[in-house]
Amino acid sequence: MKSANPTRQARIKANSAGRRELQKQELRRTILHAATQLFEQHGYDGFSLRQVAEAIGYSPTTIYLYFKDKDDLLFAVCSQGFIEFTQALKNAFAQHTDSKERIAAMGRAYLEFGLRFPLHYQVMFMQRAEWVLRSNQANGSGTDKGESSYQIMLEAVVQAMKTGVLRVADPVQTTNLLWSGLHGLVSLHIGMQGVVPQWEEDAVRRLLDRYMEVVLVGLVG
Amino acid sequence: MKSANPTRQARIKANSAGRRELQKQELRRTILHAATQLFEQHGYDGFSLRQVAEAIGYSPTTIYLYFKDKDDLLFAVCSQGFIEFTQALKNAFAQHTDSKERIAAMGRAYLEFGLRFPLHYQVMFMQRAEWVLRSNQANGSGTDKGESSYQIMLEAVVQAMKTGVLRVADPVQTTNLLWSGLHGLVSLHIGMQGVVPQWEEDAVRRLLDRYMEVVLVGLVG
Repeated sequence: MKSANPTRQARIKANSAGRRELQKQELRRTILHAATQLFEQHGYDGFSLRQVAEAIGYSPTTIYLYFKDKDDLLFAVCSQGFIEFTQALKNAFAQHTDSKERIAAMGRAYLEFGLRFPLHYQVMFMQRAEWVLRSNQANGSGTDKGESSYQIMLEAVVQAMKTGVLRVADPVQTTNLLWSGLHGLVSLHIGMQGVVPQWEEDAVRRLLDRYMEVVLVGLVG
Repeated sequence: MKSANPTRQARIKANSAGRRELQKQELRRTILHAATQLFEQHGYDGFSLRQVAEAIGYSPTTIYLYFKDKDDLLFAVCSQGFIEFTQALKNAFAQHTDSKERIAAMGRAYLEFGLRFPLHYQVMFMQRAEWVLRSNQANGSGTDKGESSYQIMLEAVVQAMKTGVLRVADPVQTTNLLWSGLHGLVSLHIGMQGVVPQWEEDAVRRLLDRYMEVVLVGLVG
């Protein structure tokens, strides 16, 4: 009965606990927002927890109430980026019913994420690969049928094989093949632009279109 | 006439200068050898010039006579690996006359280098991309018609187009396309093995064979 008709004191207590929880969530968001901005300015190696604390006018000790250490905070920053990456692939998947167009659109979404968030991409796929798994688990998609970016690509490949658009083959290997090209494109763009020719943004967009064309012909033929 | 019939003193002087030069070259090799071993043990981030000095029983000051700084020494280590990489691609090129078999063999040589020297690969293609250019220049292949690994791949593509084995298209873009898949394969192997399935050595060898098959069908069709 207590919860159906709480006393005034219990209501106050519950409200105040709720308010404290909201404040906590808000401060966590503030920390994460400042950390993301600093990460985008200074990158993985130049990132410091002290700078985040200074930026929001709190002591580092306060940040430690929310994040275990610098690594944990950086993971939260990158994990946020990873959620957006997964969402971009999901959208591309949903916007197409034709299996080939869908895979090509997912390729474009993959590249655009890499072009827009090179630092996030670098950390997640090039420096801290184990975070990919940790992020999938944290977002409740550690299981085989999860909602990770990888699973979405795999699902697109399986659908394309089921509908006879792609030749039937090991779907995991086929997904890894597609992924290799996409990862190669994004990471060579990040590393090689300005060093060797034709790795600038527009050149790499044209290269992506050609890659999808070539590889899809090969996966059918 | 002096050089045809040098005096005894001049001969001694020349011999002694030659000996000193040989000693210098030998010490440089010793430093480089120790540095390579330490690099292979500790990687890019864990590498220190002091450790190299300790390993060979010289002071860091002696090393500075041969290499400007830690970065310069690390570059020399990686550059050495790069020469081997280029040689492996050259050998694969030379061993085949059939354009498709040649490109597939070069793909296998590329992967095998990455599997055998993941740390060298990581630094050259993932962390210090500008060293690729510097290495090509240092090895006298900074010109358009140079002997860099990239030029060898490009040459194989041009040959395949000339002989009608590959459809004629922008050869630089086609080389970048092939390279993207190869780089994706090697770097995902380095980053993802043990994290996500099917990135172990043997799986990645099978994936390379499939990639070459698929992409060559697509580049012909």
